[in-house]
Amino acid sequence: MIDYDKYLSHTGRELHASAIRRMGTVVARAGDLVSFAPGYPDASLFPWHELQDIAAQLLTGSDGSTLQYGPTRGYQPLIEAIISLLADRGIRADSEQVIVTSGSQQGIDLAGRVLVSPGEVVLVELPTFTGAIAAFKNVQADVVGVRQEPDGIDLDDLDRVWQRERAAGKTIKLLYLVPNFQNPTGILMSLDKRRLVVAWAERRDVLILEDDPYGSLYFEDTAAEADTRPMRADDPAGRVIYLSTFSKTLAPGLRVGWMVAPPSLIERFDTAKQGTDLTSGILDQRLVYEAVRRGVVERLAPKLRALYQEKRTVMEAAIRSALGEQLTWPEPRGGFFLWVRLPAGDTDVTLLDRALAHGLIFVIGSAFFVDGTGHDTIRLSFSAPTVERIKEGVRRLAAAMAAGR
Amino acid sequence: MIDYDKYLSHTGRELHASAIRRMGTVVARAGDLVSFAPGYPDASLFPWHELQDIAAQLLTGSDGSTLQYGPTRGYQPLIEAIISLLADRGIRADSEQVIVTSGSQQGIDLAGRVLVSPGEVVLVELPTFTGAIAAFKNVQADVVGVRQEPDGIDLDDLDRVWQRERAAGKTIKLLYLVPNFQNPTGILMSLDKRRLVVAWAERRDVLILEDDPYGSLYFEDTAAEADTRPMRADDPAGRVIYLSTFSKTLAPGLRVGWMVAPPSLIERFDTAKQGTDLTSGILDQRLVYEAVRRGVVERLAPKLRALYQEKRTVMEAAIRSALGEQLTWPEPRGGFFLWVRLPAGDTDVTLLDRALAHGLIFVIGSAFFVDGTGHDTIRLSFSAPTVERIKEGVRRLAAAMAAGR
Repeated sequence: MIDYDKYLSHTGRELHASAIRRMGTVVARAGDLVSFAPGYPDASLFPWHELQDIAAQLLTGSDGSTLQYGPTRGYQPLIEAIISLLADRGIRADSEQVIVTSGSQQGIDLAGRVLVSPGEVVLVELPTFTGAIAAFKNVQADVVGVRQEPDGIDLDDLDRVWQRERAAGKTIKLLYLVPNFQNPTGILMSLDKRRLVVAWAERRDVLILEDDPYGSLYFEDTAAEADTRPMRADDPAGRVIYLSTFSKTLAPGLRVGWMVAPPSLIERFDTAKQGTDLTSGILDQRLVYEAVRRGVVERLAPKLRALYQEKRTVMEAAIRSALGEQLTWPEPRGGFFLWVRLPAGDTDVTLLDRALAHGLIFVIGSAFFVDGTGHDTIRLSFSAPTVERIKEGVRRLAAAMAAGR
Repeated sequence: MIDYDKYLSHTGRELHASAIRRMGTVVARAGDLVSFAPGYPDASLFPWHELQDIAAQLLTGSDGSTLQYGPTRGYQPLIEAIISLLADRGIRADSEQVIVTSGSQQGIDLAGRVLVSPGEVVLVELPTFTGAIAAFKNVQADVVGVRQEPDGIDLDDLDRVWQRERAAGKTIKLLYLVPNFQNPTGILMSLDKRRLVVAWAERRDVLILEDDPYGSLYFEDTAAEADTRPMRADDPAGRVIYLSTFSKTLAPGLRVGWMVAPPSLIERFDTAKQGTDLTSGILDQRLVYEAVRRGVVERLAPKLRALYQEKRTVMEAAIRSALGEQLTWPEPRGGFFLWVRLPAGDTDVTLLDRALAHGLIFVIGSAFFVDGTGHDTIRLSFSAPTVERIKEGVRRLAAAMAAGR
């Protein structure tokens, strides 16, 4: 029997798994389990009939390129549709500044590979998206955390961390941020803070990677589209690389995201992508393009906002009703997540053990922290389960909490 | 204006573009051009109506997971279908040994990332697939060429190169091979040589990455299925990592390939893939699975063999008729390519210039060589153009040849 470990590269030895992906595996295996774990969109709002209709038209064979290899950069009509969608978000871009990616996860990976050498620093929020942690660690980045406040990243801590790393002789390449309804906290960064962060990046000569999967999923009872304006929209110097995706506004099974960056970087991302997967799914890109062109994506957005807002309301009410003041969280004004602080004495890991015994799963908060903290937090996703399952899950959560006393 | 070059990682600075991808860009821009450049399958044999029917059934919405996120490892029924397809090729594998990839290009990339550290040696054939060169160079591998013979890699040169690199203090990690109808030469490695290569890898403690996109596209007038038996089928020690794809046997626009490897390596590839794109396209995987389950892929294979055999015959006859003995090539017994040696005095680059002026494009041979040689060769793909376009392209090739005299 060969010991394959000896063949591993540095990367292969130190690969970093995404905690959320591991949770997905548990879900796939279990029986009657309420899952508040992965941030899956609600499949009942996938535009099934529209996509069925679009697929039927695309697959007549009248255009052979629908199932053929295509350009690495992406399907040109889709790129133009993305440019127009970006304009609605306040971002001006042309074709040279956009590349289609296989989900926005690939955008994070390409940014890491093209921009970050082993040992260089990527600054992230405490907590941050586990998929980003994994991608940065897989290029051997030194992933360093910065504290968050209720309106987004803590600017004082940001500069303090920058100075500390700099004093330690480190090169700080990238600041990774999810300003809209962050995964996992749900926090919406204030517009003032966005401007200050971009100015800081300019002053400290750092690039920003702005990841925006949830921007259009604001809750109309507490937020408006203007509150979600991307940093990239007010970035005259070109500090911000912007990522987004159709995974939350259409369907994640179609792996279609995109990056916006200066042309010289887009060319590098394109070259890196050639060696990675040649091209994103061609049929997927056509399906998404047609869904945008026919207004499916636009018509869907208010329904998604209403549905997720309702689910958030249901989850918040159920937790308050079952658990009173035991649990607290920043009230999300959009997105998929409730970021819950546990009462003193309980930890994410021990509560998850008890929750699993009661048929409930969620993601432990510490998985989102690069500094080993966060054991007093858990992430509850309200996006995928039905209202009834949310209530049932909260009952199980209350039972698991009670079992710990 | 920011100079973004200073933000690039080592990888970002040294990114290696695929020559074939660049050709694709030229094709996309030009007018009346006959393209013998990219190895695209013939879109007329994509099973349009079957896929249309399958898509209609998949997109009813009765199974929400069809457009949802899914496991990184792949859609389990597809993995089982792949296992059965592997059995037909003589390869025994179970679920723990298979991972679905976003095309087999991703398999090469994952193998490079997980197995090869910067500066370590990957051995490839002279010439070899440009996408593999790009993927290996993008992990800063030292990509070193080994000569080929008419029946595959030159075993004497293989060991000579290994000894030379070893004497230079190098770690030799991987030997990358395309034994069936190699891209670009079309060469079919003999069964004897396959056994000797596996034994050599065992003796020299090297892993083999066997890339098999074309195996089922043998030409029945000169080859049989038995001639294409993968090395992985006769690999008791587990030296061979096997890659294949549905890109050539179904459609490349659905980005679905797979890797076969020992379970401990599959776990690493899975973890690396999590950070790369989370999952391959879910709808794509369902479409492919249904196409396999319904026998579409199996029924298609003999038609593909017959079509590409005919195109090869047409191209060979047209070249002989127009150019007599000026051009020579190893007669391909399968696959997509004619690997043409130019007459003394002409080079791939100058001929391509003249060919473009005559409305013809192909890939220069030197693009496939990692040692700077190969300027006396060109690769002509007969897979995508119609029989009439093949004849027209050869007329243009003859005119371009004549223009050089």
